[in-house]
Amino acid sequence: MTYTSFHPTPRTLMGPGPSDVHPRVLAAMAQPTIGHLDPEFIGVMDDIKSLLRYAFQTKNALTVPLSAPGSAGMEAAFCNLLEPGDKVIVCINGVFGMRQAENVRRMGGELVTVEDDWGTQVDPEKLRAALKANPDTKVVSFVHAETSTGVCSDVATLCGIAQEAGALTIVDSVTALGGIELAVDDWGADVVYSGTQKCLSCPPGISLITFSEAAAEQVKSRNTAVQSWFLDLSLLMAYWEGDGARSYHHTAPVNAMYGLHEALLMLHEEGLENAWQRHRSQHASLVNGLEGIGLEFVVDAAYRLPQLNVVQSPDGVSEADIRKQLLAEFNLEIGAGLGVFAGKVWRIGLMGYAARSENVQLCVSGLRHCLA
Amino acid sequence: MTYTSFHPTPRTLMGPGPSDVHPRVLAAMAQPTIGHLDPEFIGVMDDIKSLLRYAFQTKNALTVPLSAPGSAGMEAAFCNLLEPGDKVIVCINGVFGMRQAENVRRMGGELVTVEDDWGTQVDPEKLRAALKANPDTKVVSFVHAETSTGVCSDVATLCGIAQEAGALTIVDSVTALGGIELAVDDWGADVVYSGTQKCLSCPPGISLITFSEAAAEQVKSRNTAVQSWFLDLSLLMAYWEGDGARSYHHTAPVNAMYGLHEALLMLHEEGLENAWQRHRSQHASLVNGLEGIGLEFVVDAAYRLPQLNVVQSPDGVSEADIRKQLLAEFNLEIGAGLGVFAGKVWRIGLMGYAARSENVQLCVSGLRHCLA
Repeated sequence: MTYTSFHPTPRTLMGPGPSDVHPRVLAAMAQPTIGHLDPEFIGVMDDIKSLLRYAFQTKNALTVPLSAPGSAGMEAAFCNLLEPGDKVIVCINGVFGMRQAENVRRMGGELVTVEDDWGTQVDPEKLRAALKANPDTKVVSFVHAETSTGVCSDVATLCGIAQEAGALTIVDSVTALGGIELAVDDWGADVVYSGTQKCLSCPPGISLITFSEAAAEQVKSRNTAVQSWFLDLSLLMAYWEGDGARSYHHTAPVNAMYGLHEALLMLHEEGLENAWQRHRSQHASLVNGLEGIGLEFVVDAAYRLPQLNVVQSPDGVSEADIRKQLLAEFNLEIGAGLGVFAGKVWRIGLMGYAARSENVQLCVSGLRHCLA
Repeated sequence: MTYTSFHPTPRTLMGPGPSDVHPRVLAAMAQPTIGHLDPEFIGVMDDIKSLLRYAFQTKNALTVPLSAPGSAGMEAAFCNLLEPGDKVIVCINGVFGMRQAENVRRMGGELVTVEDDWGTQVDPEKLRAALKANPDTKVVSFVHAETSTGVCSDVATLCGIAQEAGALTIVDSVTALGGIELAVDDWGADVVYSGTQKCLSCPPGISLITFSEAAAEQVKSRNTAVQSWFLDLSLLMAYWEGDGARSYHHTAPVNAMYGLHEALLMLHEEGLENAWQRHRSQHASLVNGLEGIGLEFVVDAAYRLPQLNVVQSPDGVSEADIRKQLLAEFNLEIGAGLGVFAGKVWRIGLMGYAARSENVQLCVSGLRHCLA
């Protein structure tokens, strides 16, 4: 068998992630690898922690990247905060709420689910009722920006309800961070995780996580060891914290951290509010264009994510064939539906560097061409 | 606070990993990100699986990279193969055997340890005795190339003993793969894991794993779900296997996979035997140079790893100060000792692209300068 070097055909990435990566981030990743305990790398780590606090809008000391994709960030949230037997209410309105529930099952938690229809928000009143019926609930979890449906739930309200009932919160903000408002401290969220491959214009591979003081206290006072050695934050912090020497835990993905550093730096340069505004305005332009060619958005505008647009594929059209045609003719990737939406919708991402006028134009004119 | 783009000082990496990354691998990683379900990326995945079988010298169908560093590969081996209550014999002769034991503890396995002194091999007779005393042992695990001590254990013999007793084997070959012989099928090893950041000349961040048919059968016939959703191979294989469409599990680290693809391709171009020979000859040259300036190797030449050299730091010298001086004056990184070797030795890596004559010269002359 013969093998050759791989050279990808450049694509425009407007699916549910990964999204377009900024050239500055790609260039940063190609710099020479240095040691994961090199003093220069410790400086990069310190910058990343500080820039993550800016991105998450938090003062949480325990705010770090994890050396694995967003799903591992989700798992780290659950396996560090929970012990077997703990009761958890998971609010489900799409794939990622289902995945949260699966995490609770696997770690031996006592699972209570609160379900809402795909394409709608998590209903605060249902959560309130579930907490009343389950006063021994330790943790409430839900998804801020449901990537499978394009819905934004009301984090501040849901966290407030959990807090009143004395429960901690775990919030999935994978698709939110950098694209829409996320105010961890002001909203009283306890554990929030995200990823690099959505609105940060960075390749997939790293998750980002922050723990409130109350959540960090919970981790410190565990009676049982975290099942995962790799994701155990009490061990990880020996590497990520401290003023002087850091202890070896695992070997950090040095070049991926270069990329994350540059991506967070670019978000800081642009400013959070400007980034959110850019996502909103590109979304408005996309809505205008797609409605202009007769396409319909699935999610109510009141709680629609600007960065992840779920659009019905027209009757009599194979949504998969259109996606293939867009990729073949225009090197444009848009996403398929998941779960109950499979085969019925497209998911069109406007995340990070992908949220640009030229992308909106390409997507609208490409779809117009393919549907003509 | 102000932040600026990070530009690392180029280093020569001769520690225990990460090792020097080849410029071709860095360039591959900087190529545009494409989707993790893009047909072109599926081609990359197929190449990687096939090239990994070459590197591991196996026909195992279940041979894949995992989207997290070597420690996660270790965890994947244990959490997929074992169920709570299973008896495991872990042979310990350094840090990574200790970490294997910790994995067994955390997943609720019944742990039996067989211990040998740091700097010596795993003793086959001790394993044989432990298996006789524990005939219900399901899995035997040990480290092929102990990165903390520079010792190579006899994988074929240890696997043979386990097999006779009806136990499956888990072998840590993180530092071995690409640097010394590793013949998974011929040696009858069941689960073998490795990493990218040692002898593959690739940045850290990805682990590599292979399961024999017997081990894969064990995974399929589990009574309990794997505790980790992220590392559950039965779910992962829906993404990595199949002739046609792949199912989404998590978002693969696309650019890191570009790098792995190029690194494996380079190993294939050089040829395994040539790569091993290069490591051996550079090691011989390093031994010659370091013994010439009066330094002593800790490990017996009969079972010493060519790619990871543990050298005593001379009496009356601060080993940490010398490492700092090498980094400051020559941008040369060598490693510190771990565990019982902390403060007493240097660990000098000659791994992958770092196993070059110019590196050996720099290391010997740099140490001569600093010790003068």
